[in-house]
Amino acid sequence: MPAKAPATATSPLAARLLGDLVGIVGAENVLHDREELLVYECDGFTINKKVPDVVVFPTSTEQVVAIVKLCNRLDVPFVPRGAGTSLAGGTLAVGGGVMICLTRMNRILEVNTRDRYAIVEPGVVNVWLTRALTGRGFHYAPDPSSQTACTIGGNVATNSGGPHTLKYGVTVNHVRGVRLVLPDGTVADVGGVTADPPGYDLAGLVVGSEGTFGVVTRVTVGLTRDPEAGRTLLGVFDSVEAATETVSGIIAAGIVPAALEMLDNLMIRAVEQAFGFGFPTDAGAVLIIEVDGLDVGLDREARDIARIVEARGGRVERSITWRTRKEPEYVAIWKSRKSAFGAIGRLSPTFCTQDGVVPRTRLPDILRFIEGVSRRHGIRIANVFHAGDGNIHPILLFDEADAAQVASVLQASHEILDECIRLGGSVTGEHGIGVEKMALMPRLFAPEDLAAMVAIRQGLNPDGRCSPSKMLPTGGHCIERSAPGRRSSA
Amino acid sequence: MPAKAPATATSPLAARLLGDLVGIVGAENVLHDREELLVYECDGFTINKKVPDVVVFPTSTEQVVAIVKLCNRLDVPFVPRGAGTSLAGGTLAVGGGVMICLTRMNRILEVNTRDRYAIVEPGVVNVWLTRALTGRGFHYAPDPSSQTACTIGGNVATNSGGPHTLKYGVTVNHVRGVRLVLPDGTVADVGGVTADPPGYDLAGLVVGSEGTFGVVTRVTVGLTRDPEAGRTLLGVFDSVEAATETVSGIIAAGIVPAALEMLDNLMIRAVEQAFGFGFPTDAGAVLIIEVDGLDVGLDREARDIARIVEARGGRVERSITWRTRKEPEYVAIWKSRKSAFGAIGRLSPTFCTQDGVVPRTRLPDILRFIEGVSRRHGIRIANVFHAGDGNIHPILLFDEADAAQVASVLQASHEILDECIRLGGSVTGEHGIGVEKMALMPRLFAPEDLAAMVAIRQGLNPDGRCSPSKMLPTGGHCIERSAPGRRSSA
Repeated sequence: MPAKAPATATSPLAARLLGDLVGIVGAENVLHDREELLVYECDGFTINKKVPDVVVFPTSTEQVVAIVKLCNRLDVPFVPRGAGTSLAGGTLAVGGGVMICLTRMNRILEVNTRDRYAIVEPGVVNVWLTRALTGRGFHYAPDPSSQTACTIGGNVATNSGGPHTLKYGVTVNHVRGVRLVLPDGTVADVGGVTADPPGYDLAGLVVGSEGTFGVVTRVTVGLTRDPEAGRTLLGVFDSVEAATETVSGIIAAGIVPAALEMLDNLMIRAVEQAFGFGFPTDAGAVLIIEVDGLDVGLDREARDIARIVEARGGRVERSITWRTRKEPEYVAIWKSRKSAFGAIGRLSPTFCTQDGVVPRTRLPDILRFIEGVSRRHGIRIANVFHAGDGNIHPILLFDEADAAQVASVLQASHEILDECIRLGGSVTGEHGIGVEKMALMPRLFAPEDLAAMVAIRQGLNPDGRCSPSKMLPTGGHCIERSAPGRRSSA
Repeated sequence: MPAKAPATATSPLAARLLGDLVGIVGAENVLHDREELLVYECDGFTINKKVPDVVVFPTSTEQVVAIVKLCNRLDVPFVPRGAGTSLAGGTLAVGGGVMICLTRMNRILEVNTRDRYAIVEPGVVNVWLTRALTGRGFHYAPDPSSQTACTIGGNVATNSGGPHTLKYGVTVNHVRGVRLVLPDGTVADVGGVTADPPGYDLAGLVVGSEGTFGVVTRVTVGLTRDPEAGRTLLGVFDSVEAATETVSGIIAAGIVPAALEMLDNLMIRAVEQAFGFGFPTDAGAVLIIEVDGLDVGLDREARDIARIVEARGGRVERSITWRTRKEPEYVAIWKSRKSAFGAIGRLSPTFCTQDGVVPRTRLPDILRFIEGVSRRHGIRIANVFHAGDGNIHPILLFDEADAAQVASVLQASHEILDECIRLGGSVTGEHGIGVEKMALMPRLFAPEDLAAMVAIRQGLNPDGRCSPSKMLPTGGHCIERSAPGRRSSA
């Protein structure tokens, strides 16, 4: 990708930085033409947009250090970015400046199955690591739906989950250490290869910090042993209520499924149209219920699950018995689930994937509420989500060319997230705060709690040049307070 | 415990604080007489001692806030303490001042098995929570050997592990949120009831921070479902080598035991003398190997383990089949293991329990090294440890009245920890840094890594009055550097 240099399409700030940046990373690793930059104006949250002045693609920690030091010297904001699949504007270049895109730091540096870790650069695509482990008896557990595109660096930024979070945990449970270029250009290695090293758990702090503590240039992750076998059941229900009651029933029975995913009727039809897996398009909802572990216990668990499904008026339409996650029927059902967001493209030109959490037992309440919101605002809303975690993903369909629809979608999102808080949940399960939900933080946290976060941020990012105006409502932002839902203090 | 007031036995600083402290917590909750304070001069690490000027026992968050604000007003250092079972001087009142003892904040405030959490005050003794859950199908997973005495607040401070850490993780994996009185007296609620809430993972940061970020006054922990059943095997070996090779063999076979504990011959004899469980006193080493989960898979796992034990020349002497952890034989074997430190009292008037970590595969190397250290310094060393985690606990026996022996123990400890670093491990698995191991931190971390930790600490504890001179070598401390073992940077 050769750098182009039509001066008129390059911002004055970019022009000022260009010589130094080209000196650091080479001309082939710098974008500054406005047209080329358009790709970087937003992530998966398409409602807020801002073109950065320049995008650089470093290939080493040393280059990242040099870029960050340059930004400090010239007082320019910078923001790291992976594949841009994030959904809350976490990579938005809010104040313009330099976007540090890590997709060319994409090597798997070490795989050690004996001590069960791998060391990767941040631009390694999530699924590459599991592919590199094929046949060695291990995999990398966090598996976001976007795993064929999203990067492990991006997963670290947002503490990504996925369908198998219910049993295997989120990204923070699998990151042992990171190499971090701090906002002042210092390099720190936090955490390490062994689990739970001494000192503050800075690796845990960096995971989920959405790039506000610096640029991660290396990640050490734990590897998870492949289960001996599994059963993946497709439960079919007349209504969303029956499906959510089944979720509670399974958990209450003491079963910990590897995954427990729900799709509602609108979602089923979109997915079926796109992939033809064989979902019943007249069902009110389906559940994908997976258990894994020692083969010997699984048939009994599958039978127990079937009984619980039937007790709620549902039926088990498929039951896939697998030894590896490569078996065709297994691949097909999960492809349908994980590509659900893509399938939505058939229903609507634009959509907004929301992310909220409620206590699992309140799933029926929030789904009823979402139905009401859909009716009230005249917006179609599809639902596909991690039912076992109480982590909902209503997908609001709209046309971004229609300003009234955009306003309705924002209002509807707001109402849904408000209701999540009211029900005792939160405004994001895994997509992060980004710019989208920053204004909601004071609804979730007391001023003292936010102040503690700000104090930490100022300790590590005192000048605020690194990922400004993200995650925490600080500086010029107005902190609004609201009694319900905020946690009490003292 | 009425406050006594013989003026001569009260320090001038205590005298200055007394009126205010009595006003905050009442006279019955203040100790200031030098004799009464002696109990608080050290924790389980008996080599460094320092009597605080005054010990207070608050009974509410409000009282803690008032104490902390008083300390700030008068520029007096303060340090929180639980039961004082810590082993690295983490609760030592290094600079004197006020010790805030949380043992009277000992209520279990809420147990919610539906959403699987409990809210407790920090002075709740670890085992009380599991006892409160008896018959409800849940327990609190972290189970340090000291669990009948240590407090959950202390567990939070040191990120305690225990025999079942191998499968169930350490304290940080079970803490969802804490109420924290920050060093300036502000109250923050970090984390929450749901797992992985938005914002920085401050709860994760507080766990393991050894009181350097403030005083925890409330802890929300996750509850773990009781396993359906288990098998606990006693493997007997001629040598420590055969036992450690068995550990590697079990893990390599893909079995994740709930616990995998080793006792060497000296330890076996001490424990057998104390409890008479029936350990073979002529064995070179024994392994306690536990698996749990669905009953249906356990017999096969137990058979696989027995085969691995026998392949290394060992034999399985006991095999306990259990449905609950209340069964007498189960209770007896674990009582023997967990009271091992107490049993040591029969061998020696004083002992120092060390704590180090090596990659599991290097266990034979470190144990041979410890044997050499023992011979070279003429110090008896017993070994009992979490073999599955590579977390060793050599117990060095000595007489504290003999200054030469004390010096030898310190030197021997130093050599063992050095070797742990050289083998790719670290200087503490679960006891923390405290004051004992502060000087070793620069051996484990590069200056940049320590600087990042210091920046965080200064963000939350800018005046350094809270738990001064703990964990991080800052201020007047000399940072020595050493090439081997430190992690690389950039």
